[in-house]
Amino acid sequence: MQLDHGLVFMSDTRTNAGVDNFSTSKKMFHWHVPGERMITIMTAGNLATTQAMVSLLRERSITTQDRDPSILREATMFQIARLVGATLKEVIAESSLSGQSAEQFAASAIVGGQIKGGLPTIFLIYPQGNFIEITPDTPFFQIGETKYGKPILVRAYDPAMSFEDAVKLLLVSFDSTVKSNLSVGLPFDLQIYEKDTFAQGRVIRIDEHDTVYQAISSGWGDALKEAFQHLPSYKV
Amino acid sequence: MQLDHGLVFMSDTRTNAGVDNFSTSKKMFHWHVPGERMITIMTAGNLATTQAMVSLLRERSITTQDRDPSILREATMFQIARLVGATLKEVIAESSLSGQSAEQFAASAIVGGQIKGGLPTIFLIYPQGNFIEITPDTPFFQIGETKYGKPILVRAYDPAMSFEDAVKLLLVSFDSTVKSNLSVGLPFDLQIYEKDTFAQGRVIRIDEHDTVYQAISSGWGDALKEAFQHLPSYKV
Repeated sequence: MQLDHGLVFMSDTRTNAGVDNFSTSKKMFHWHVPGERMITIMTAGNLATTQAMVSLLRERSITTQDRDPSILREATMFQIARLVGATLKEVIAESSLSGQSAEQFAASAIVGGQIKGGLPTIFLIYPQGNFIEITPDTPFFQIGETKYGKPILVRAYDPAMSFEDAVKLLLVSFDSTVKSNLSVGLPFDLQIYEKDTFAQGRVIRIDEHDTVYQAISSGWGDALKEAFQHLPSYKV
Repeated sequence: MQLDHGLVFMSDTRTNAGVDNFSTSKKMFHWHVPGERMITIMTAGNLATTQAMVSLLRERSITTQDRDPSILREATMFQIARLVGATLKEVIAESSLSGQSAEQFAASAIVGGQIKGGLPTIFLIYPQGNFIEITPDTPFFQIGETKYGKPILVRAYDPAMSFEDAVKLLLVSFDSTVKSNLSVGLPFDLQIYEKDTFAQGRVIRIDEHDTVYQAISSGWGDALKEAFQHLPSYKV
């Protein structure tokens, strides 16, 4: 999510291969050169694909002999998005070489951050390797199980909101999804990036024992019911 | 939706074959023998399939020479669900005879009502012709674009709620979907069936000029924002 004064990222950690086979896996990854660049990638879709993509990006960013483009060398966020898109497309293409459909290996990613000389921004990367950038008209991106949590984002988002309110909004949105769909689950990973700091900012893991999350989760049900009572009734 | 004192049905009327080709079509259909039975069917999915299914059910319910099972003759709601499931499966199978995949002709239906001697109930019919019945654990069914509107149903449903509150809840749920997805749109069709009346009850069409709907739609945004303010903040 893009705010006037920075970026906020949140991801869940639930992965599954069917309801009888699920586990926890981090879906948020950071690349950081203090004072120069801060880049965050979040992933959704086939776990083998996204892990391979992140490993390739990591390897190419630490091996100095490697002449491939590196996520720590690209000059702009746009070039970073191109790099991530190309890497994602490469992994999916390789997985489908044996004649299997590319669809089952599909994955998508959100890439956000800021590089010195540019503004903070976020891209949504498609399995095909192409991507779109965030705009004031579309101030947040979602990937994965997006629908349950969208209505509250549409209603309550405000670019001037504080980081505290933004985190609260994201928790309400994720909580709506968790309550409706087994494929999304706690803990959540959260990162708050303050504009022009080129620092990683706060990175927090929120689990089900977090008392503020518990208060928001149970409080939201009551708050919704009360809000609902205040609406006019449809006389029938 | 099943309540202690009856059933409430709501459907939208948007149909589309791509975003550049959408129109309005009723998706709620009634069969009614005063004092004896009231049956309502709502449909989602391929419009050709659902129209053919409804036409077959209608034809077989008006032609007395026709010896096929009729929706006005079956003795129980369970038999009605079997009939609707078989008819839906038949239409999809016929459409795919020419070798095309059955998937593109897929549709689903919700069948609810009451027949003298039985209780009011609701079934969800799958494209494969099989079906599930509503239970106290799953007191409402959704078909079509279900995800955006589900969280508020999960949170605010109460079997003892009044018809007025149930309609308000359904309007909030549909409104969340309309605001997030072009494939769902006004006007909405609404039916309220009071238990053991075996009468059609109130059938209302709600369009975008409906002042109560407008008040609920705009009021819900404000109510959500206010509810949101009252939640504890996540200190970051």
